[in-house]
Amino acid sequence: VTLSDIFHPESIAVVGASREEGKLGYAAMANVRDFDGPVYPVNPSGEGELFGQEFVASVADVDADLALLCVPAHVVPDVVEECGQAGVGAAVVYAGGFAEAGDDGEELQARAVAAAADHDVVLLGPNTSGFARPAEGLFGSFVPGVTEIEAGNVAVLAQSGGIAHAVAFHAQREGRGLSAMVGLGNRANTGFEEFVEYLDDDPETEAIVLHVEGVDDARSLVQTCRAVETPVVTFKVGRADVGGFAESHTGALTGDHKLYTAAFHQYGVPTVDSTTQLLDAGYALANSPEPTGTNVALVTAQAGPGIAITDRLKQAGATLPELSEATQDAIADRLPGITYTDNPVDTARPSPAFGDIVEIVARDENVDVVLVYELHEEGLGYPTETLDGLDEAVDKPILFATGGLESLLEADRAALESAGVPTYDTPERGADAAAALVQYAEHNEPSGSASSGPGGASR
Amino acid sequence: VTLSDIFHPESIAVVGASREEGKLGYAAMANVRDFDGPVYPVNPSGEGELFGQEFVASVADVDADLALLCVPAHVVPDVVEECGQAGVGAAVVYAGGFAEAGDDGEELQARAVAAAADHDVVLLGPNTSGFARPAEGLFGSFVPGVTEIEAGNVAVLAQSGGIAHAVAFHAQREGRGLSAMVGLGNRANTGFEEFVEYLDDDPETEAIVLHVEGVDDARSLVQTCRAVETPVVTFKVGRADVGGFAESHTGALTGDHKLYTAAFHQYGVPTVDSTTQLLDAGYALANSPEPTGTNVALVTAQAGPGIAITDRLKQAGATLPELSEATQDAIADRLPGITYTDNPVDTARPSPAFGDIVEIVARDENVDVVLVYELHEEGLGYPTETLDGLDEAVDKPILFATGGLESLLEADRAALESAGVPTYDTPERGADAAAALVQYAEHNEPSGSASSGPGGASR
Repeated sequence: VTLSDIFHPESIAVVGASREEGKLGYAAMANVRDFDGPVYPVNPSGEGELFGQEFVASVADVDADLALLCVPAHVVPDVVEECGQAGVGAAVVYAGGFAEAGDDGEELQARAVAAAADHDVVLLGPNTSGFARPAEGLFGSFVPGVTEIEAGNVAVLAQSGGIAHAVAFHAQREGRGLSAMVGLGNRANTGFEEFVEYLDDDPETEAIVLHVEGVDDARSLVQTCRAVETPVVTFKVGRADVGGFAESHTGALTGDHKLYTAAFHQYGVPTVDSTTQLLDAGYALANSPEPTGTNVALVTAQAGPGIAITDRLKQAGATLPELSEATQDAIADRLPGITYTDNPVDTARPSPAFGDIVEIVARDENVDVVLVYELHEEGLGYPTETLDGLDEAVDKPILFATGGLESLLEADRAALESAGVPTYDTPERGADAAAALVQYAEHNEPSGSASSGPGGASR
Repeated sequence: VTLSDIFHPESIAVVGASREEGKLGYAAMANVRDFDGPVYPVNPSGEGELFGQEFVASVADVDADLALLCVPAHVVPDVVEECGQAGVGAAVVYAGGFAEAGDDGEELQARAVAAAADHDVVLLGPNTSGFARPAEGLFGSFVPGVTEIEAGNVAVLAQSGGIAHAVAFHAQREGRGLSAMVGLGNRANTGFEEFVEYLDDDPETEAIVLHVEGVDDARSLVQTCRAVETPVVTFKVGRADVGGFAESHTGALTGDHKLYTAAFHQYGVPTVDSTTQLLDAGYALANSPEPTGTNVALVTAQAGPGIAITDRLKQAGATLPELSEATQDAIADRLPGITYTDNPVDTARPSPAFGDIVEIVARDENVDVVLVYELHEEGLGYPTETLDGLDEAVDKPILFATGGLESLLEADRAALESAGVPTYDTPERGADAAAALVQYAEHNEPSGSASSGPGGASR
């Protein structure tokens, strides 16, 4: 199986393309109309052009690597067969009514899989709203607006197309991009493992975030996540009993949540509990040096949010080590009268020295991950210059949680992000992202530094 | 004690007002310069004008209801004494260095409290960044940008000034307003109880949200929250051990988190675990009919987010009752071929019938709270017309979680909010807000309907 016909097709056929707005075959065609390669609207009853492309009667009439199947479920097996005969390498099956919909649907899905197997066709779906590959200008989804998703370095791989799009649009609203967005749906012949492995080799992808409802072979999924080099984060749904609803969705049981979590945890795959945490954790991992330990230092300009963050970090299992004497002395030198020089460091207000304090703390050898909180204040802004490149210089993740008026912080926050500092717009989002880094480090510590010894000061 | 001199002063003195930008006395003066009443900059060494107001040498020279004390900690007791003698009714003490800062600070605070007691002066603080009363154009805070906080019907009452401002700015970023924002700080002579009681009588306040680090008399706080009619939600920090840091902040121990949570829960005061949940819960309670039971119906246009929401609701203790046969029949009539007519109702895609489905479900007598999820689709938008007034018509909260591209959803979402429907921009935020309504209803059920009996269908 190769997914290159999904992610790097040279040409696309939209089977069931339609000129009728509101139809699937119109929406899917609209989203690929600007693709940099031939796009063929396929419809035996189609006449004339659609988005400037002439209709063709059959997929056999064209040379397409990728087919987007905008056809009803009952004809999907035959269309997959036609695609296979025509040399199509991959097909996205949007229709529902397959394995998630009882015995008849299961049989239909089995027939589609058999047709695909005969001709080595990779299937995405059925029962998905599709995928996107923003950097390639490739939007194989029927959801309006998907073409506005921007390119980035986090790949979203969701069992549910709805979740995939919800997360992608959330990223877009926050000015973040994605290397790929995939809604897997029923995973008829291609699932998490194939996509995770493919994306692991993708030079654009620096972190992979998974939304998992349930899979038949959890062990295989966990081992794949462990084997790849790219950091993986998972949001496994189903702590409570959502079995019936979930099964009706993508035809999968949710399984035992605790077993999944324990297995992921054991292999250094952070687990989170919401789409926001998933996005935030992926963004932190993709844009930071690899965290090598679980010791977090917090530098805050406001005590209240700092306490809330500390509380949340500790609940998540992070350690807040004491800072070295040298660090504490340097802080006291730089900011006489500081409220709290121990970890967390509380500067009581933003000040021109704030960036220096962050740098002093980041250079402390007891610290593996730095989290900063600063409510934006007009006139002071952020210590962007000091933080630019600091994470690489100290080889540690530095995350920045903040807040303030949109009108005041927008430009400054964008500048901070451009300097490579992942930012988060509430105390808890920053804390949760740091907690995911800690989870990641817990079982990915480089050999020789697995334990930091008493006092946390031995490394 | 009356807080009317804080919330409804006719005149304000800014003691320690300064023409030097960056100084507290400048920032505080800047934020009250547009107050609709006399504002007096007080400074013995002040000359000329500040923001068009002539400096006065002493608070004794003017008639002020409210004084904002921009002076160092060590002079605060004397300044409070002067204010008291001059007939000032309330003073905001911004300076830190009191009870949170060891024995000397405690003594200083005791002297300030004694001076206040001699003259019946209400103190806000010390050790706070202040308060805001947007509808009155009153911004007694030194934090830049605070004047952009808009008027609304949720009051934020935080032990930490930093949290108060972080939550208020978060609200502002999301287009929501507040009836009041208060950072309590050290609560020298006025604390949660006085403010909660005052705000309970405030016609602008429909919900009060509390951020609590710790109080000496937890029982008193809980009983106050129970006694008032206005819904109260609490974010109690300190699940993990943050004792040392917290005590250094506002001089209070965080106490036993479980005891707080149990006590709040017993009295129908929802507890949440983040600033975002706090804001969202307050917004739901302030803008909905009072929830009278714990049965939640979910109507979703996308299965994946629906499953994630269901999972989160169930973890939070919500019940998702079966819908009546009549409801299920009506749904099937309106939307033939619907994926899942049981609760949750999954319409599989947005459609023109979506609003009707929500209305059918909202009218089901088994349902106490309705949560909707719909990823925004261009061309379809939201069923705003159908939902306008529906919550009042069925006398049940109806919350709406959504997602999509900012550029597409912004206007439609604003219209939905204008129609009185609280909206949330991720699946989990909607679920958490609904869970808070359930927590509220759990111990506030009207007499005679405390139990819904087997099957949940008896009411």
